[in-house]
Amino acid sequence: MRYDTAIIGTGPAGLEAAITLTIRKKSIILIGKKNSSNKVRSAEKIDNYLGIPAVSGDELARKMLDHAARMGVEITDGRVTLIYPYGEYFGIQCGEDMIEAKTVILATGVAPANTLPGENEFLGRGVSYCATCDAAMYKEKKAIVVSYSKDYEEEAEFLKKYAAEVVYIPMYKADSVNAEAGSSDLYGGLSSVPGITVMNAKPLEIKGGFKANTLVTDQGELQTDGIFILRDQISAASLVPGLETEGGNVKCQRDMSTSVPGLFAAGDIAGAPYQLIKAAGEGLTAALSAVKYLA
Amino acid sequence: MRYDTAIIGTGPAGLEAAITLTIRKKSIILIGKKNSSNKVRSAEKIDNYLGIPAVSGDELARKMLDHAARMGVEITDGRVTLIYPYGEYFGIQCGEDMIEAKTVILATGVAPANTLPGENEFLGRGVSYCATCDAAMYKEKKAIVVSYSKDYEEEAEFLKKYAAEVVYIPMYKADSVNAEAGSSDLYGGLSSVPGITVMNAKPLEIKGGFKANTLVTDQGELQTDGIFILRDQISAASLVPGLETEGGNVKCQRDMSTSVPGLFAAGDIAGAPYQLIKAAGEGLTAALSAVKYLA
Repeated sequence: MRYDTAIIGTGPAGLEAAITLTIRKKSIILIGKKNSSNKVRSAEKIDNYLGIPAVSGDELARKMLDHAARMGVEITDGRVTLIYPYGEYFGIQCGEDMIEAKTVILATGVAPANTLPGENEFLGRGVSYCATCDAAMYKEKKAIVVSYSKDYEEEAEFLKKYAAEVVYIPMYKADSVNAEAGSSDLYGGLSSVPGITVMNAKPLEIKGGFKANTLVTDQGELQTDGIFILRDQISAASLVPGLETEGGNVKCQRDMSTSVPGLFAAGDIAGAPYQLIKAAGEGLTAALSAVKYLA
Repeated sequence: MRYDTAIIGTGPAGLEAAITLTIRKKSIILIGKKNSSNKVRSAEKIDNYLGIPAVSGDELARKMLDHAARMGVEITDGRVTLIYPYGEYFGIQCGEDMIEAKTVILATGVAPANTLPGENEFLGRGVSYCATCDAAMYKEKKAIVVSYSKDYEEEAEFLKKYAAEVVYIPMYKADSVNAEAGSSDLYGGLSSVPGITVMNAKPLEIKGGFKANTLVTDQGELQTDGIFILRDQISAASLVPGLETEGGNVKCQRDMSTSVPGLFAAGDIAGAPYQLIKAAGEGLTAALSAVKYLA
């Protein structure tokens, strides 16, 4: 099945785009977290979402998700790691699945903080954003996982089924509940898996020849066959080959079109201000621009 | 008093801008209809305002107005007929008052349908958008009022206090309740005012020499000393001398800035799509751009 539109991201921009396209009777797939964006949910109090005064982020996220569900919008839980424009359509790598869509709305939220030096250079050549996708290529090899969330502990374990050795570098605080209980493993049992080493280090740079082969850290240089960098957000430039960006954000026109025909952006990834109602408004505009493009 | 920002229009764009600037502790004046925009209020059912599903326009307008009131936003009931950029600040003609503000956010809604041939040409030279402002100049003279709403019946009556003769051309349907009751005057008692003639005619063109002196209608040519054209919306180009427009809408950048420094636009007047959540989002962006400009 080739969808009319794939929407990446379930914050206000993605949800509003999904509602608008559903009203316009387009076939869509909405990919992201089932419970909307962490950014929305973690806001203590929101005063500037017109019509819903003094609301908590959690409550507003619930209202938005309820609204989308009521319109028949479904969320496909997943993380998109590559969007490839083939001209006629887009190929969207989501975990192990390849999804096809005629248009794409990118609504993945604020661009990630600085990538590592060497990260963009070696992407696809020893640097990957998806352990489950590329695990099979690491049979008998050594891999490093730089992980920004405990959600990715599972991916490291999956990777170990193929790789001979996995070094797991957590870039987040260990679960404090376990820590207080005096657990010997703060990282989802990872360090008790044979062949997985949990290492506290700060990655500084990726080096190599044609392919990446070294991760420089504040604890010294680590030799490896490959490095997996697992973050919730992937920079727009890494996600879509050829996409023009500006200070990390996607360069957009007023109709939310980008430098890639058929690909639209909305919300934080389309630039400041990083505010919910602005994101929702852009989600609508991007959706209607996609409708126009499909016609 | 010179305000930080004057916001013109009380639809979603204007209300969101007012809330955002209030949170930022800027001094504002919000000018427009006390009960928000007619366009919002007349919508039967709105499905695409994220977080507030299946709502009537009237109910949504109430929620928006309540939100603004809760944040301490007040509405100044009025109609702005001219905004003049003096460089350091703006002069804003509102009825008989001249308001000063360092920045302006234009959120007056969708651009009006076609202006009359000759209207822009003679504006300020025998063509005016404000009867109460210019009435005093019509002592012993003859004026024509082309009125697009019964709200302006009063303005015609006020004008007659100065003018010798007023021809009132209603461009709207007479109040059907009165019509059914067999009232002899469907236009707020206007035709019973000595010196006022209510005339059913279709204006076609404004002609004149240096000043306008003739209104061409489908009932023949009417000689006059001046023509008042009273509409809810005034075209952006007429409202702000020198403002660049595109197909009737204000030409904007992504930050909602316009060709006039310090003047921002938001909502329908800034172009399609003409949707509430897009308007609200732009109101926020315009407000934060005004904050940046003020700094």
